[in-house]
Amino acid sequence: MRSHLFAFLLVPFLLAAQTGTQPNSPQKGSQPPDAELQQPEMPADVRADLEEGIKHLLVSQIEAWNNAKLEGFMQGYWQSPDLTFFSGATVTKGWEPTLLRYRQRYQSEGKEMGKLEFQDLNIDLLSRRSAVVTGTWRLTMSDGKRPHGLFTLIMKRMPGGWRIVHDHTSAAD
Amino acid sequence: MRSHLFAFLLVPFLLAAQTGTQPNSPQKGSQPPDAELQQPEMPADVRADLEEGIKHLLVSQIEAWNNAKLEGFMQGYWQSPDLTFFSGATVTKGWEPTLLRYRQRYQSEGKEMGKLEFQDLNIDLLSRRSAVVTGTWRLTMSDGKRPHGLFTLIMKRMPGGWRIVHDHTSAAD
Repeated sequence: MRSHLFAFLLVPFLLAAQTGTQPNSPQKGSQPPDAELQQPEMPADVRADLEEGIKHLLVSQIEAWNNAKLEGFMQGYWQSPDLTFFSGATVTKGWEPTLLRYRQRYQSEGKEMGKLEFQDLNIDLLSRRSAVVTGTWRLTMSDGKRPHGLFTLIMKRMPGGWRIVHDHTSAAD
Repeated sequence: MRSHLFAFLLVPFLLAAQTGTQPNSPQKGSQPPDAELQQPEMPADVRADLEEGIKHLLVSQIEAWNNAKLEGFMQGYWQSPDLTFFSGATVTKGWEPTLLRYRQRYQSEGKEMGKLEFQDLNIDLLSRRSAVVTGTWRLTMSDGKRPHGLFTLIMKRMPGGWRIVHDHTSAAD
């Protein structure tokens, strides 16, 4: 069941996810090469495992959202007062205030959560413990409206698994 | 002269910049501690040097912007077709298209660059080669308008120094 669920949910990610390239283009006025910058290549199986963990978290979030389980969705976020959530010109700081923001926007009187999709996913593993994930989010509402926009997630690997420590979200004007 | 310039330009950063904390809060349902997650502490002097390099880049960008030198400002960005710039629901990919976007918004007929400030700067060094920088941007225009918003920068240290490889910018509605 679990593998079936995953095969179903992961297909869009497996089709869409790209691994970020390591920047290595020569720079104008470059200094002598810095040995420290020669990052040891991450073994392909380690990379694949780490990316799988990140995809797992995102799939769990989408699944929770589309079952109207906001607390489940919020499990993807670092449960800390130092979590940061950027949207427009507004900074929300901390896990509880971020949950409250989502509740007000998607679960208060007259609001709905809609159906969530992520697309154009890009995972850039910066180390074995940190990654940047970018992509497009899109909601489909019961009236047919489809609000959408972009996200940049900073993720860190913690004892409990990957967690989002910073989320910058923007929407179409 | 250089140190004077730096003392002048860096004061807001030195007052405002905070080093991101490493997440270490216990997670619900945590797995056995993972030795790999015990990141070796970065020596304070190494950390300070790396952060100084990042602040130097940002100060150079502000200085270039406020002298209407858009190409100078753009030197802070990774000169690659893989640079990504997110704003609203629009992805701009590549250094040249990002320069073009800035030209259209701030140097075309009837447009102006204004005076740029960064505030609430936070630098989170993810490794010796990568960092997340967040903050507030604000422009002051000749008519007194002050458009503002938030930015999340992914920076990587390259042979030529730190460069922005991904920029997610949002503005007040």
